[in-house]
Amino acid sequence: MTDRTELRRLADRLEIADLVARYTRAIDRRALHELREIYAPGGIDHHTGFDGDVEAYITWLTGLLPRLDGTLHVLGTHLAEVRGDVAVAETSATARHWGTPADDPSRNFTSIVRYVDHLERLDGRWRIRERWAVRERAWSDAGRALPRTEVGPMPTMDDRDPATSLLARLRAGDLGEAARG
Amino acid sequence: MTDRTELRRLADRLEIADLVARYTRAIDRRALHELREIYAPGGIDHHTGFDGDVEAYITWLTGLLPRLDGTLHVLGTHLAEVRGDVAVAETSATARHWGTPADDPSRNFTSIVRYVDHLERLDGRWRIRERWAVRERAWSDAGRALPRTEVGPMPTMDDRDPATSLLARLRAGDLGEAARG
Amino acid sequence: MTDRTELRRLADRLEIADLVARYTRAIDRRALHELREIYAPGGIDHHTGFDGDVEAYITWLTGLLPRLDGTLHVLGTHLAEVRGDVAVAETSATARHWGTPADDPSRNFTSIVRYVDHLERLDGRWRIRERWAVRERAWSDAGRALPRTEVGPMPTMDDRDPATSLLARLRAGDLGEAARG
Repeated sequence: MTDRTELRRLADRLEIADLVARYTRAIDRRALHELREIYAPGGIDHHTGFDGDVEAYITWLTGLLPRLDGTLHVLGTHLAEVRGDVAVAETSATARHWGTPADDPSRNFTSIVRYVDHLERLDGRWRIRERWAVRERAWSDAGRALPRTEVGPMPTMDDRDPATSLLARLRAGDLGEAARG
Repeated sequence: MTDRTELRRLADRLEIADLVARYTRAIDRRALHELREIYAPGGIDHHTGFDGDVEAYITWLTGLLPRLDGTLHVLGTHLAEVRGDVAVAETSATARHWGTPADDPSRNFTSIVRYVDHLERLDGRWRIRERWAVRERAWSDAGRALPRTEVGPMPTMDDRDPATSLLARLRAGDLGEAARG
Repeated sequence: MTDRTELRRLADRLEIADLVARYTRAIDRRALHELREIYAPGGIDHHTGFDGDVEAYITWLTGLLPRLDGTLHVLGTHLAEVRGDVAVAETSATARHWGTPADDPSRNFTSIVRYVDHLERLDGRWRIRERWAVRERAWSDAGRALPRTEVGPMPTMDDRDPATSLLARLRAGDLGEAARG
């Protein structure tokens, strides 16, 4: 393998890992429009309770997510295998869901899932062509929630979230001079 | 450091991360024979309740895993340090276990572990020479399981699992043309 | 993008991921002095119940951590965006805390957090300039702890821990010959 081929292989792997990560950030921050850049046009998602293309998936999530006060996806084990412009990735995750009332197990639960992705390179960027979100198990968190303290950095779903606002400042060149920029 | 040395360093890190990830997939999908390509020949595993080489470990797991309906390892923090053909890696993980009956805490529990690995490069491939699976803590999930719905992509332990079947299709060239293949 | 620029980009991403991982190891192994090499001098941390620079943060943790018997941070989703010598990273994590008595929810809980990091390259090394540890939610683990068995590899906070001692052996050249060293 030439150095250039090897470099390309490593860059592909990082880009695919980033793509899967960007999916979870889009869900957790309710930036659902970003899913259009993560799935290929017409890309298909198979979920617990849903099968359809990315546009239908956004519609489904738009109806579903307001039932919850928040979600956080903590991605884990990630493997990917690339063959030219197609790839398969598998990523395990812990998905946390919470809502009101806190003793309602349909709004307060932890699921574990494997995201199984068929990926394609389109116009030089990796996209999800088809995804199977394989739910392995789910557990109720009803009765376990600790009181939320309004102390320390607080998450939001809008631009005030620390991650969203810090990224905006970076992109605006507002985090000091980038010496090597 | 030359570019080639730097490229090799990055490739080593990715290969080691993949190796640790392949271990968890082999366990979770009950593909225990794959452990022979993950550990070095004669490689040693130290586990809660087990010490021995990879062959004995496979035998031990073969007896143990049928007690459970499933497991999922969600890997987390991963660090590795490479010196030539030896390396040390440390990877934290959340390990989920579930079984029947659902109120039996010996079959339904979550453990957190640090995999501490002494690795060697053998014939150009990284392998585990010796592993310490350091269990930090475990908690019962008895009474928390939500009913399993037979909806959406379902996991299996055999070739019908979405990840296993999709990978097989990729390797068979059955996911469309790979333009740059 | 030249190959050299691309190589540098990949190396930056790995170094930033490692930095975030080293933070959690420093906390979990109680090696708090290492935080001085992870944050920039005067680097700021915003935490649930704390705001201040790295020295004050170490002092705060030194008082707080003895309340607990142990912690383990399992990092998840990680994204980073680099612009020259500044960067922004976001990393989700599951943070486990346990202590005595086991039915005290203030010592036995699981929190989920997003580490939002403003990073700077100083003297060629990435450091945290400012961090927001955004706690999303926390749940009590009181009453769920399984008995700890003194079997298998045991964690410690000192040099006897399997990870700490194995790394020391690697660095001392004590894990066999490194053929390509």
